[in-house]
Amino acid sequence: MQLVKAEIITIGDELLYGQVVDTNSHWISQELDRLGVKVVRKTTVGDNRTDILAAFAEAEKRADLVLITGGLGPTQDDLTKPLLAEYFNCEIVEVPEAVEAVTAFFRRRGREMTPLNILQGHLPSCCTYVPNEVGTAPGMWFERNGTYWMSMPGVPHEMKKLMKDFVLPKLPSLFTLPVIFHKVIKTAGIGESWLADLIKEWENALPEHIRLAYLPSLGHVKLRLTGFGDDKTILAAEIQQQIDAVLPLIDKFVYGYDEETLETAIGKLLKQNGKTVALAESCSGGYISHLITSIAGSSTYFQGAVVPYHNQFKESILGVKKETLLHHGAVSEQTVREMAEGVRAVFKSDFGLASSGIAGPDGGSEEKPVGTVWISCAGKDFAEAKKLQLTQDRMLNIQLTGVAVLNLLRICINQNNK
Amino acid sequence: MQLVKAEIITIGDELLYGQVVDTNSHWISQELDRLGVKVVRKTTVGDNRTDILAAFAEAEKRADLVLITGGLGPTQDDLTKPLLAEYFNCEIVEVPEAVEAVTAFFRRRGREMTPLNILQGHLPSCCTYVPNEVGTAPGMWFERNGTYWMSMPGVPHEMKKLMKDFVLPKLPSLFTLPVIFHKVIKTAGIGESWLADLIKEWENALPEHIRLAYLPSLGHVKLRLTGFGDDKTILAAEIQQQIDAVLPLIDKFVYGYDEETLETAIGKLLKQNGKTVALAESCSGGYISHLITSIAGSSTYFQGAVVPYHNQFKESILGVKKETLLHHGAVSEQTVREMAEGVRAVFKSDFGLASSGIAGPDGGSEEKPVGTVWISCAGKDFAEAKKLQLTQDRMLNIQLTGVAVLNLLRICINQNNK
Repeated sequence: MQLVKAEIITIGDELLYGQVVDTNSHWISQELDRLGVKVVRKTTVGDNRTDILAAFAEAEKRADLVLITGGLGPTQDDLTKPLLAEYFNCEIVEVPEAVEAVTAFFRRRGREMTPLNILQGHLPSCCTYVPNEVGTAPGMWFERNGTYWMSMPGVPHEMKKLMKDFVLPKLPSLFTLPVIFHKVIKTAGIGESWLADLIKEWENALPEHIRLAYLPSLGHVKLRLTGFGDDKTILAAEIQQQIDAVLPLIDKFVYGYDEETLETAIGKLLKQNGKTVALAESCSGGYISHLITSIAGSSTYFQGAVVPYHNQFKESILGVKKETLLHHGAVSEQTVREMAEGVRAVFKSDFGLASSGIAGPDGGSEEKPVGTVWISCAGKDFAEAKKLQLTQDRMLNIQLTGVAVLNLLRICINQNNK
Repeated sequence: MQLVKAEIITIGDELLYGQVVDTNSHWISQELDRLGVKVVRKTTVGDNRTDILAAFAEAEKRADLVLITGGLGPTQDDLTKPLLAEYFNCEIVEVPEAVEAVTAFFRRRGREMTPLNILQGHLPSCCTYVPNEVGTAPGMWFERNGTYWMSMPGVPHEMKKLMKDFVLPKLPSLFTLPVIFHKVIKTAGIGESWLADLIKEWENALPEHIRLAYLPSLGHVKLRLTGFGDDKTILAAEIQQQIDAVLPLIDKFVYGYDEETLETAIGKLLKQNGKTVALAESCSGGYISHLITSIAGSSTYFQGAVVPYHNQFKESILGVKKETLLHHGAVSEQTVREMAEGVRAVFKSDFGLASSGIAGPDGGSEEKPVGTVWISCAGKDFAEAKKLQLTQDRMLNIQLTGVAVLNLLRICINQNNK
């Protein structure tokens, strides 16, 4: 079966000058991916005749489906409509139905129309008019030599409505769509190349129709398995088989699948086990607490946190011993263990987590350079501690500490249940 | 003067399948725009030989500068490096300096290297090696027929570092850049259309060569003034004159300029006044503490924070009265005032800040729907409190509470100094 290839063209100077983030193409990609349409290219061009026409011509050579957003406003700098007419070699004519729809739109909003607005109901004669119920610029559908085109406004909710109501439902009747199945394995605590090393043999033995991609992000690596075939159920089973095969090799680094995050994964674990957690964050400054509380329902397992940014508060609130701080310093295994145990007591939680380190850029020494971080997880009858040697960058150090602490909690919960 | 044209090519299946949002090209666009380099096209292609080579060839025809991100990982699915070698017709060779840098990177982190990692120090012989101090994939600089190319990793902080340290400083020596001067006024506590209303007359009277853009973001509106001319000093003075003229109209909403954030602005204010702050965060869950501690040097004015996620800890740690919680509830003016005063006492700080609200999605009632948030700022002899009515979205509510609390602190410090 031939893959159906799509291209997305987003039009507008504001996208090139960095004034607006293009979220449209990301959304369209996700929707097409779900249907098994392969997006092969995204192109962004400005409000410029030559560039827009070039993008049209290039896309037509390669794609079965071309989705265009933007450049449909009523003002002079919006060129998409006249250029589509030029490209498809037809006139712009009044479409009474479209004029009526624009008029009705303004009537419903109780707003005055300008002559410019009426022109939004004038369309290239070679397109199919697609009503836009939530805005004034209609959708336009073109077909030529087996390539299908849809032009939509750049306003995200208008584009999405046209995609959902018109484009996406139409695709199965135009193309024989393949079946694609994705599954993402989420890992933490191991770098991309070590992971690759661990699963090399498995990776090389993957069948042709199942592909693997490594998607690294801060402190995490995602493994994406993509299967191509005819039957979703079979594909899903095949991919599950591959996951079952690789899992024993990387088990302890895997915290979840697909949309799961480390925060949601530890939330799930805590809930399943009926356990609670509290945090003493020094160098991470509230970041980990923020990650945990970003999850709806976290109040069932999150008791609270203390950010004791100076030694005196590590003593007064968490009960860290003066001697410990004196002899070992704030950034030490001893202190971080007492912090974890202390915060567990203050908040009467099952687990106590702690971080203490030198986030930078100042405060480093030869013995404890910037990036030195101690983390700890304390439970009823154990306390784990771990030293991290991170980077020169303050924000990165905070974020990497966050991943490491949450991952340590995950490991502690799992070990405790064995 | 000829405009300098740039194209951005982002590479990776994950961008086409909608699994990762491309934030890189947006950031690059903004930086180039600042320098007067015109981005004329952005292209995203997958990890596919034909598509990547086609994107290279098309870009070379049009652009003076081609910036490439992604596809530089050590694994088999990453194709950018071998395809650049193929495109520029040269071999991949060992670059001892690059191998040494990768090795040193691993040494600093105290981690083992794999053979794959060593290969990251092998580069096309026709490129200039550009060290990547914060990652393992080096930057690669190419020149051919008057077009300059830079290939960078897709990891945002690595790409940004290479851009800031190498590419952006290099551009003025390669091209004659136009003179553009930007100045951004940062505001908080007022919406875009109200702001526009306040400064309408001033805006309409701006000279032709000075343009104004409204850049709204969560809880903030930035006003960007852009001047075009021949002489940077004259432009800067003209723009300063315009700012002096508009400032009296919007004074109380302005917290800073250009790169300043609300966090850095309040940090500056606290330092200037020799004051300290502590936080009691309920619904904001550590987020504001994280914002404040993200700033280097914040330990001089930040004492600490408590996240008392349940009523008992508002009592036990902050000393909120049981009756207050009983009669008024956790989300109330009375409670939030006691929290602010309580945390001020616990941390012996000059200012105490507090938030308590219903972040959602659950926990709302008719009287206190989701999005109801009380915030407070307490000082030596005053306590301000304010009710916010925010959104249905948990994360938005946390972020908007953050902006509102920091802005309330800013106002309190300023009022206290009058």
